[in-house]
Amino acid sequence: MAKVADKYFKVDPWKIVEEGFDPAYGLTAESVFSLGNEYMGVRGYFEEGYSGERLLGSYFNGIYERQRAEAQGYKGIVQETEFMVNSLDWLYLRLEAAGERLDLAKCKVSDFRRELDLKTGVLSRSFTWKTDKGELEIVLERLISMVHNEEAGQRLTVRSKDYRGALLVHAGLDFDTVHGGDKKLWECKTYRADVSDCHIVGVTCVTKMEVESFCAFRGSLVEKAYVTPIREEKKAVMAFALEVEDGEELILEKSVINITPLAKSAKCVEAPEKRLAEITFDDLLADNSKWWEETWEKSDIEILGDEENQQGIRFCIFQMFQTYHGAVEGTNIGAKGLTGEAYNGNAFWDTETYCLPFFLFHDRQAARNLLYFRYATLEEAKKRAEALDCKGAFYPIATISGRECCNLWQHASLQLQASTAVAYGIWCYEKITGDTSFTEAYGLEMLIEICRMLASRGDYNAEHTAYGYYCVMGPDEFQMMVNQNCYTNYMGRFGLRYTLDVITRMEKEAPESYQRVVAKIGLQEAEKQDWKEKADAMYIPFDEETKLFEQHEGYFKLPHVDVDAIPVEDFPLYHHWSYDRIYRNDMIKQPDVLMFLLLFNSAFSEEILRSNYEFYEPRCIHESSLSPSVHSILAEQLHRSQEAYDFFRFATRMDLDNYNRNSGEGLHTTSIAAAWMNIVYGFGGLRSDGEMLSFTPQIPGEWEGYSFRVVYKEEVICVSVDPKKAVFKTLGGKEIALCIAGQQTIINGEEKTFYLDNV
Amino acid sequence: MAKVADKYFKVDPWKIVEEGFDPAYGLTAESVFSLGNEYMGVRGYFEEGYSGERLLGSYFNGIYERQRAEAQGYKGIVQETEFMVNSLDWLYLRLEAAGERLDLAKCKVSDFRRELDLKTGVLSRSFTWKTDKGELEIVLERLISMVHNEEAGQRLTVRSKDYRGALLVHAGLDFDTVHGGDKKLWECKTYRADVSDCHIVGVTCVTKMEVESFCAFRGSLVEKAYVTPIREEKKAVMAFALEVEDGEELILEKSVINITPLAKSAKCVEAPEKRLAEITFDDLLADNSKWWEETWEKSDIEILGDEENQQGIRFCIFQMFQTYHGAVEGTNIGAKGLTGEAYNGNAFWDTETYCLPFFLFHDRQAARNLLYFRYATLEEAKKRAEALDCKGAFYPIATISGRECCNLWQHASLQLQASTAVAYGIWCYEKITGDTSFTEAYGLEMLIEICRMLASRGDYNAEHTAYGYYCVMGPDEFQMMVNQNCYTNYMGRFGLRYTLDVITRMEKEAPESYQRVVAKIGLQEAEKQDWKEKADAMYIPFDEETKLFEQHEGYFKLPHVDVDAIPVEDFPLYHHWSYDRIYRNDMIKQPDVLMFLLLFNSAFSEEILRSNYEFYEPRCIHESSLSPSVHSILAEQLHRSQEAYDFFRFATRMDLDNYNRNSGEGLHTTSIAAAWMNIVYGFGGLRSDGEMLSFTPQIPGEWEGYSFRVVYKEEVICVSVDPKKAVFKTLGGKEIALCIAGQQTIINGEEKTFYLDNV
Repeated sequence: MAKVADKYFKVDPWKIVEEGFDPAYGLTAESVFSLGNEYMGVRGYFEEGYSGERLLGSYFNGIYERQRAEAQGYKGIVQETEFMVNSLDWLYLRLEAAGERLDLAKCKVSDFRRELDLKTGVLSRSFTWKTDKGELEIVLERLISMVHNEEAGQRLTVRSKDYRGALLVHAGLDFDTVHGGDKKLWECKTYRADVSDCHIVGVTCVTKMEVESFCAFRGSLVEKAYVTPIREEKKAVMAFALEVEDGEELILEKSVINITPLAKSAKCVEAPEKRLAEITFDDLLADNSKWWEETWEKSDIEILGDEENQQGIRFCIFQMFQTYHGAVEGTNIGAKGLTGEAYNGNAFWDTETYCLPFFLFHDRQAARNLLYFRYATLEEAKKRAEALDCKGAFYPIATISGRECCNLWQHASLQLQASTAVAYGIWCYEKITGDTSFTEAYGLEMLIEICRMLASRGDYNAEHTAYGYYCVMGPDEFQMMVNQNCYTNYMGRFGLRYTLDVITRMEKEAPESYQRVVAKIGLQEAEKQDWKEKADAMYIPFDEETKLFEQHEGYFKLPHVDVDAIPVEDFPLYHHWSYDRIYRNDMIKQPDVLMFLLLFNSAFSEEILRSNYEFYEPRCIHESSLSPSVHSILAEQLHRSQEAYDFFRFATRMDLDNYNRNSGEGLHTTSIAAAWMNIVYGFGGLRSDGEMLSFTPQIPGEWEGYSFRVVYKEEVICVSVDPKKAVFKTLGGKEIALCIAGQQTIINGEEKTFYLDNV
Repeated sequence: MAKVADKYFKVDPWKIVEEGFDPAYGLTAESVFSLGNEYMGVRGYFEEGYSGERLLGSYFNGIYERQRAEAQGYKGIVQETEFMVNSLDWLYLRLEAAGERLDLAKCKVSDFRRELDLKTGVLSRSFTWKTDKGELEIVLERLISMVHNEEAGQRLTVRSKDYRGALLVHAGLDFDTVHGGDKKLWECKTYRADVSDCHIVGVTCVTKMEVESFCAFRGSLVEKAYVTPIREEKKAVMAFALEVEDGEELILEKSVINITPLAKSAKCVEAPEKRLAEITFDDLLADNSKWWEETWEKSDIEILGDEENQQGIRFCIFQMFQTYHGAVEGTNIGAKGLTGEAYNGNAFWDTETYCLPFFLFHDRQAARNLLYFRYATLEEAKKRAEALDCKGAFYPIATISGRECCNLWQHASLQLQASTAVAYGIWCYEKITGDTSFTEAYGLEMLIEICRMLASRGDYNAEHTAYGYYCVMGPDEFQMMVNQNCYTNYMGRFGLRYTLDVITRMEKEAPESYQRVVAKIGLQEAEKQDWKEKADAMYIPFDEETKLFEQHEGYFKLPHVDVDAIPVEDFPLYHHWSYDRIYRNDMIKQPDVLMFLLLFNSAFSEEILRSNYEFYEPRCIHESSLSPSVHSILAEQLHRSQEAYDFFRFATRMDLDNYNRNSGEGLHTTSIAAAWMNIVYGFGGLRSDGEMLSFTPQIPGEWEGYSFRVVYKEEVICVSVDPKKAVFKTLGGKEIALCIAGQQTIINGEEKTFYLDNV
């Protein structure tokens, strides 16, 4: 893997720190310093305006625009795509002193420091502005509430060191933002700016989605200033003009309420102005501190003797919760979260495959909400199946509203893994939470529709001896259009069999729910028989002698490429190789066979895991950011510790050290989830797919110790590992049965020690 | 095959006749009544204006526009496409009588008749125009010179039956035309209209190609009229105003000269006005009549007892010569010739595979010009190879100027058959003409560059035991992205070996030419060795037991579809099936294995031909218009006469009876060539790929007799067949050695009879 760190931020266990501003890292820092609360997110852009390179990004979950795709008019090829749309700059601010407009690309500035506090979610920035007439100390703070979705705060502190003279501050709300570099996609219905507050309503041009924003001002700066409203198009802005005295400190506080159709706080929706008057920056800060304290209590990972990964993993966990914690119903996790426009804010099958475990072990309701998104969009998946000449439901490979948004047909039409991942997600949810109510209310219906797709998209081979999927693209996107992809077939068989199991169980245990679903979607007995036959006939290419699964029919015959011999400058291959060349050999982009060996890890012997790992790992170039963690977890299981650590090396710091050189576009949100898995499933050896929750802890040679916590059966399991031993206990003292290092055991509030020699 | 005739035109051995005008057939008639001379072409549109549905199409070979393709930015995916651009309406005419503008969609008209004379190339149209003030007989004639590329004529005859009053005629040149339904792509540099002539110059917006047009008027109408120039944008038009007497006949003649960068007549280019003054409609008509007389002399096919196919095949031959006869250097044959905008005027590998034989047996120079197009565009093919990470030359799948214009990467990047077809074309040319001078001057250089591509695009399999092509699409476009496509490998091996043969021969027989090429493109000895090894290792999937070639690796395992069970309303499948569904089974669109069994027919035993025909034919749905003729030829060879005739049934009348319901977009020009092959190779049993030219004539049970002529070794071979016998002779009396019905023989000016019992 040709991945090299690009170090920029300072290392600190609970903070991300930037000392001195280097414009070359401007976009990356904007992504890294993103704030979000699932409902909304802003990149860490300079709110006072900046004439250098930047992406002023402000997003709301579920607020999207639509555009025509320039597609060939074949059936099933997407004609329209939807994308999370850059929306208003509710942090809008302009400063002028000594006749100079503050702009970090142009002004003289010293002592720049930017800091994201992972314990409060406050982003602060301070610097000295050296005007011709003297120096001003500027502090800018912002936060988004983790408690009340709609609320956010901003605080400007101006301290004159030796400046005396006029200061002009503009502050307010601005819908005149651009998406995708040049597109203006908002129309404003109304805007108003008064002495103490502003109000603006924006509507997207095509989807007609409405975002309403309010802000209120307070603080010494407001009190002292001469205040006038400013009329500019698509803006609601107030001007504050004042004279600053030598040594004087002035504060402008701005409270913001943003309302979208997904808002749920009655206080905010019904009386936003009243609510604004109630909240101060310090109130929001206090709320957030408490929220994060409780969250870290059940989610923290501590690493001793590795400050960089300590910072890295906390940043990952922090961003994970900022992106999603079940606060908004009917939303999903975009590939870049709420931190950028790349991937259009679309959610992929990463959600169920990588992100779901994180939430299953921290917040059952959040996990359930994620799964519910698939139920809420089931009708769209059924329409998509119809477009693809299938029965049942075909889940989109990329989506916001449930509609397929991937306009590359070779992905959108050939990848079945989004659908099988939904079945897998339902299975995981049941397995880990023990809660069958989701399946009964929603899951069964989805499972049946997925089975209908699985039974109609596949085919029997020419001799009618084996069933499977033709013309598919498995997880490995470097084998584009193949037959009998092992992952797809394996997951298809799983989906069919699991659904039949659920049906059998619910017929007995939840007959009313079962009958309701059967009646609703007309399930036939013959369908069940068909699914059983197809599952039993499913072709899983496996060589008994070598213990190798064949990634797809014919894969073993493909020309071999020595991936280590590919020159570093050829990466990423998509940019340097002819598109078709990528597909003409046995090179793989990301785990495919190894993926289902991880998802159903307990079902495979170590011999099988080892053979396949040894065969496929050298063929993988890890062009997906999700790939190394999967390899790391399996390598650790196979006692290839150094290799495991090498793959892990950049998992937690993918964005902090900009390993893929594209963090400026937004964070690799789903790979953040993989980083968490890498520690907990990799080093901690957690396995959740077997009969019992199990751990087989190990520790990288580089570490003095580490600890992590997972929520399981409404209890927090605390695991601490050092080079000699692993210590388990439950935080609340509840007894929990586990399998640790292969032994069934029960842990409770007392520390229980397991020596690693025995592990 | 769900193909049904849509009868409209009257049957006549030498004419295409339309009696009465049905607007529902308007577009089809426009295509069928297209005129062309390779240099330029016009559809049979109503030049007086028409407010109904129509495509006013006027095209020049080699005059194209360029547009951005909305493609993903992957390497090797086409970013710009080129298309033959609709150009000026040089037939522009408007008529007004009794205050009424002539418009066949609105006016009262009787006795409508339109007629295309295949012996002169004149398109004439006559009808009675019933105005409120009386009736006028209108006759409109047009022709395009087959002798002087740039010249064309138009004649309007107005006869008053009982009309007395004003007549206003506008006539001239009009660049205000639309392309693709709504795009105006011409800018006019200059336009001028004088008493006796008009002049206009148009330039395309992006490619800056220039078309200059002149016209002159004469005739009794001009003499009698009050003449004024009309100033309208992008038009050069004269107005002729006069009073018509009862019973009077008036004639307006318009001579036209169109000059593009491919014009070659010095008279036209240097002194167009002078030349215009010299030519009359009758002069052009006389030239054309002579040209067609000489052409039919060596090319006619006569069918006795089947008037429809008689008309059909003559229409095909007529359109073939109108589209191409080697009159313009450096051009090729678009899929729709010069008769419409579908397929963008792009040429495909159809040229070498289907069209070349027609010209090889009629006009060696025309065939040579077609091949020269590939030499003229070799540099573009080399650039294309580079874009696709190959060495040498990768010929485009669709092109006008030599650049790849297909923006479907799955065709443009995966289809190697355009390149191997060039090698095949060079081979055919040498084989049939015996002329090695083309190969020496141009062919070798192309062959070497094609071999370089063939040796770099392929790969050895994992075990390094077999060479072949991965991720390709063979001729059958229903198997999209496959490995070891038998056709591609077979043609690849042919290309490598043939090139090595040519090298060996030229080293001895044309050492100077050989050394010139070697020096020019730096051919290395090691390359030749590499080609030999790769050719020898080429994988040709063949099952010795069943004698079946496998279309590609894994094809035999694909799910089987009973193509006869597909409902008629599902066709064409591209419109009714999900795009990916088409590719998931063993259904094929057009011959693939059967294609190379025809191209190299003499190399295969009847047993092999039979097995493969019987296996592949039932799997083919013939969604390509070229498919049935290939099957017909092989079926005839295998003595499946009824089947052969069934496949032939619509070959000659594809457009006259609008079998594919899309003739309105333009004629199926390359399938016209296949219709010719269907008779000459199919029923006549001509084979040109063996050691000796051979014939094995048969006759469909439906026919009383047929005869055809081919030019071979500068002599015309005349073949007449009736149900009992085939008679051969040479028109000029020259002796020619042939193999007839398996026997070597020599024919001459005397008729030589072969009884079909023995055939």
